[in-house]
Amino acid sequence: MPYAKRGGVNIYYETYGKGTPIVFLHPFSTNGYIWYFQNFTFAQSNKCVVIDERGHGRSDKPQQGYAIKEMAADVVAVLDELKIDKAILVGNSIGGMLTMQTNLDNPDRVLANVIVSSGTNMAAGMPPEAKTAFQNDAVGTMNGLLENAFSAKSKREKPELLDLMRASFAVEDNFPRHTFFASISDPSGVFNWNISDQLKNIRKPTLILAGEEDQATPVAANKFLADNIPGAQLRVIKDVGHFYQLESPAAFNQELAQFVKQVAR
Amino acid sequence: MPYAKRGGVNIYYETYGKGTPIVFLHPFSTNGYIWYFQNFTFAQSNKCVVIDERGHGRSDKPQQGYAIKEMAADVVAVLDELKIDKAILVGNSIGGMLTMQTNLDNPDRVLANVIVSSGTNMAAGMPPEAKTAFQNDAVGTMNGLLENAFSAKSKREKPELLDLMRASFAVEDNFPRHTFFASISDPSGVFNWNISDQLKNIRKPTLILAGEEDQATPVAANKFLADNIPGAQLRVIKDVGHFYQLESPAAFNQELAQFVKQVAR
Repeated sequence: MPYAKRGGVNIYYETYGKGTPIVFLHPFSTNGYIWYFQNFTFAQSNKCVVIDERGHGRSDKPQQGYAIKEMAADVVAVLDELKIDKAILVGNSIGGMLTMQTNLDNPDRVLANVIVSSGTNMAAGMPPEAKTAFQNDAVGTMNGLLENAFSAKSKREKPELLDLMRASFAVEDNFPRHTFFASISDPSGVFNWNISDQLKNIRKPTLILAGEEDQATPVAANKFLADNIPGAQLRVIKDVGHFYQLESPAAFNQELAQFVKQVAR
Repeated sequence: MPYAKRGGVNIYYETYGKGTPIVFLHPFSTNGYIWYFQNFTFAQSNKCVVIDERGHGRSDKPQQGYAIKEMAADVVAVLDELKIDKAILVGNSIGGMLTMQTNLDNPDRVLANVIVSSGTNMAAGMPPEAKTAFQNDAVGTMNGLLENAFSAKSKREKPELLDLMRASFAVEDNFPRHTFFASISDPSGVFNWNISDQLKNIRKPTLILAGEEDQATPVAANKFLADNIPGAQLRVIKDVGHFYQLESPAAFNQELAQFVKQVAR
């Protein structure tokens, strides 16, 4: 399968279908597989592109270079490779950050945005002991965080989801420890990236979907985005945590289909 | 990501983790993504290998060559490429057929088998009008079949699964019509393959998991396998159809973990 190469880093992507392009951007420590319930379903009406972000899954995993700006430039490299002019960007968590950054750096390549459980300046809301805990026991600390990233309903009815997210983090072939530490310590990486005062420059139609029970990027973090991105619409989803597309795929797909219909016409 | 090449056909595979190897083989018209809830979870303790079978997903899709024997030889080519001596084979539907054929052709490469909703000589149980229906309206006919391949519970609680399986079949980039027609008309392909009188030669520990509500490869077809493979164990799963690993991943994983523990020691 194909790669887009940028600065010596191979970025893995897959593409299926034809129509208005939709690019799917996954959360930190996962990979493009997380869009399994969207990729093929939407490929019946759209050109779907799933990317493994640098440091994840089937992409190269450099020792450094995990600024959100770098990772967002990879997304544009994939668009270039596929000769896609403009796409609907759908990003979850760090994927949402890449979505926002692409709007700032390459607004002409964006048709619209769906931001699923994300935020900016996440480090500000983080207790100082969290970083120490990560240094001492990355897997154990992440396991605790992930426990709180799912709704009670998801944990009760789909225990495989928490297992899977823990495994995606723990399996080094998917997400090596150096990606994790380089990312969280990067001054412009997943934790420290702060575009609070630039959100007003995001001008494309934006739908923000926040899981009501998400403690990883809580509703307040998503509301902050919606309050500051002009015209953005916020929807808070009951019984869902940090991974709406995986916790409740049928409802998510209905919502995404409706949004795509609005912005693609 | 890597391919194994055999007779000019590139077979896509992914591998994660270390330990006793487990090879996952997907159903007809799908792809390796169907093992999303197994691949990473088991990679914490095993070397997991997911293959896209020829004609599917990210593998090459030749015009002809869809005999089960050919497709099973591709599995061995991946084992060779990865220098895997023996593996536990986990196959669903046509994946189960590849599992059985590998036992017949290359028994030394097999540690044990998990066959999920499969059978042999499937054409025998098929009404003659079914083939005409497929010729006239492949997608419509498959949509009807898939409707009956899920349990009532799965359709009620996880409607995205039927959507996804229909999409996997319909999206030509994943599963082109020529793969479908070449496979079903092949005298040794998915429908006509018949090893009824060779099942007795399968000598490795074999667990057969049949979904109670599966109408694609009904319990009787799986019971026939269990009755004829020496020492095979049959488990019939309530509230499950043709895709146990996807319909009820947590229960499936528990069952698979227990089996792996038994045969790997």
